Amino acid sequence: VNVITLTTDFGTRDWFVGTMKGAILGVNPRSAIVDITHEIPPGNVRAGAFALMASRKFFPKGTVHVAVIDPGVGSARKMIAVQTRDYFFLGPDNGVLSFALEWEKIQAVHALTNESFFLQPVSRTFHGRDIFAPVAAHLSKGLPIRRFGPALKSFHRLVWPQPCVGRNEIRGEIVYIDRFGNAITNLRGDELPKRTTKNWQLHFKARRVCPVAAFYQAVPDNKAVAVVGSSGFLEIAVNGGSAAELFRLKVGDRITARWAE
Amino acid sequence: VNVITLTTDFGTRDWFVGTMKGAILGVNPRSAIVDITHEIPPGNVRAGAFALMASRKFFPKGTVHVAVIDPGVGSARKMIAVQTRDYFFLGPDNGVLSFALEWEKIQAVHALTNESFFLQPVSRTFHGRDIFAPVAAHLSKGLPIRRFGPALKSFHRLVWPQPCVGRNEIRGEIVYIDRFGNAITNLRGDELPKRTTKNWQLHFKARRVCPVAAFYQAVPDNKAVAVVGSSGFLEIAVNGGSAAELFRLKVGDRITARWAE
Amino acid sequence: VNVITLTTDFGTRDWFVGTMKGAILGVNPRSAIVDITHEIPPGNVRAGAFALMASRKFFPKGTVHVAVIDPGVGSARKMIAVQTRDYFFLGPDNGVLSFALEWEKIQAVHALTNESFFLQPVSRTFHGRDIFAPVAAHLSKGLPIRRFGPALKSFHRLVWPQPCVGRNEIRGEIVYIDRFGNAITNLRGDELPKRTTKNWQLHFKARRVCPVAAFYQAVPDNKAVAVVGSSGFLEIAVNGGSAAELFRLKVGDRITARWAE
Repeated sequence: VNVITLTTDFGTRDWFVGTMKGAILGVNPRSAIVDITHEIPPGNVRAGAFALMASRKFFPKGTVHVAVIDPGVGSARKMIAVQTRDYFFLGPDNGVLSFALEWEKIQAVHALTNESFFLQPVSRTFHGRDIFAPVAAHLSKGLPIRRFGPALKSFHRLVWPQPCVGRNEIRGEIVYIDRFGNAITNLRGDELPKRTTKNWQLHFKARRVCPVAAFYQAVPDNKAVAVVGSSGFLEIAVNGGSAAELFRLKVGDRITARWAE
Repeated sequence: VNVITLTTDFGTRDWFVGTMKGAILGVNPRSAIVDITHEIPPGNVRAGAFALMASRKFFPKGTVHVAVIDPGVGSARKMIAVQTRDYFFLGPDNGVLSFALEWEKIQAVHALTNESFFLQPVSRTFHGRDIFAPVAAHLSKGLPIRRFGPALKSFHRLVWPQPCVGRNEIRGEIVYIDRFGNAITNLRGDELPKRTTKNWQLHFKARRVCPVAAFYQAVPDNKAVAVVGSSGFLEIAVNGGSAAELFRLKVGDRITARWAE
Repeated sequence: VNVITLTTDFGTRDWFVGTMKGAILGVNPRSAIVDITHEIPPGNVRAGAFALMASRKFFPKGTVHVAVIDPGVGSARKMIAVQTRDYFFLGPDNGVLSFALEWEKIQAVHALTNESFFLQPVSRTFHGRDIFAPVAAHLSKGLPIRRFGPALKSFHRLVWPQPCVGRNEIRGEIVYIDRFGNAITNLRGDELPKRTTKNWQLHFKARRVCPVAAFYQAVPDNKAVAVVGSSGFLEIAVNGGSAAELFRLKVGDRITARWAE
């Protein structure tokens, strides 16, 4: 079995995702297709890049990850395939793969130009179905990546907001808000000074403060808490509620983690 | 592997679609089930018919397409199975299959009456699970269509709104609005006079006009453009925005494509 | 093929469900994963328990049912695996499995404590991915349930609201509202006195009354009707509309079914 994952902004209201799967199964009927999400806000390349980064490593080796958040579809933007030690990544060359690739050992980057693997006729508005889907299916069958187009020396990278480390604080920002209203920050749990010996607090929204704890129910109902979430990043949560709603948090908001020695 | 697609108005909030898949896997554990969409507006047979038409041909030969938008479930309405050169189609006989079937070479039409293939006891409110799912699974295993019930001479057809061709214009209407707010019309791209030699414009909403171009980013941000979309129909889009919201477009609105010689 | 079903409150906006599937496929690449629903309202254990009860029996024998509505994730709450004559059930020990288990022949109940089957490192906030997913995959491959932890004598049960039977009426309540706005009650169709010989009416919302019939279109458009729905329970529906919206029905509302002799 060959796993292919899909991350898109196509939604599930229409038939778009279904036809991508049809195109995949037409080439590789044995592939197992997994939806990461199709509800990335339309055109939000950064949100798609974050979702792919957060999910990629939970799949078996050899998985083909396809990310199509592609506001420039039909224009001259490139499409790329990237082989890493463990996975393949396919997407438009607009940075949607770049957060994930920062954590991967890259082995080859190729442009997708070999039209003999595309669904004909290729539309100008739906390369997810006509190009990425069949190429993913061929890759999942073991076709070497160089068959799909020429090697590239570089690809487009989004700038990841690096946290800023001070003497007794780290400053960062909110990078994603999930369905529960948890606000995920750019502070990685494993980059924080050892939590066992420190007394941590997270500061946000001018005067708001919350403790850093190990899980949501460590605080009473409807109280805020910062935990290292399942993606490895510190996130602001409210036990039994939505932190984003309660505190009107949004992507880009600044946060500061402080500790007492 | 045998592909079965599902197009319904059941939504994904409840367990309805899941139990259809359980019923299918109970009969044919090797089938690959693909969701086209489950978010057809409740009871909107025309929208379901359009989604099925737009997606059917992107699936491998032999695929069984199941469409259950079925406001008359439990009443005396018939249920039908249709074999075409490339596919099977299953649904209530209320027209939900008819847009797709206009493009297919029909070989046989049968009523679904043979209760030995139904899930027992058959409910009066959920034939998707109790009848269509197991019949689809049996069809996908190769059982001949005549086993499910008697041949029929005709089936219910919805009227497709035919565009009206004038000397230097074509008049049509909006037939579907997708998740991006693109308004899909009934004008097929391949029925328009050659675009390369013409200067096209699309007129809509009294005084609105937009150019016809090849892809969304052919116009500046937030500007309207008409493109031949991925389903083959001319659609009104807004680069980076929602045409349906911006211009309050809805299904049934009249549009006119005009050209200069 | 081994079927694994998923019932969660994770939504489909983020990557959570996708990574559960990745973790499953990493252990058992041949499993067929079916989504029951991921749109249980966050933390609503009763709604999840009802969805699982209503769907479980439509799956092939040997199916592994996983239900993760788990507001206590990371706290000291137990996690359990239950083997019944036909199925396996996995979930936190907060009652989410209990409505389903009332209808099953229970053969064994075990705590999930053997960390050698967990995804390492185990997060404190996402046991769906790190514990339930890999354990489900191992179960689906035939590993005996006792391998995952010690046997338990009991598990947490939610109280099912029992209807109250009078001389010529049964009193109950609304237990679930589905996507169509149908209000499902706790009155089982097969526990009502024979419908053929009785003239039934359902009373709700002080002075509202509707007939009990066999299917939705038995009443005119926009009229209320009570039918025994596809899950076997009496439900209040409106032909072509939403009963929940029209009558402002909600879970917990009292209803009474009366008959004339």
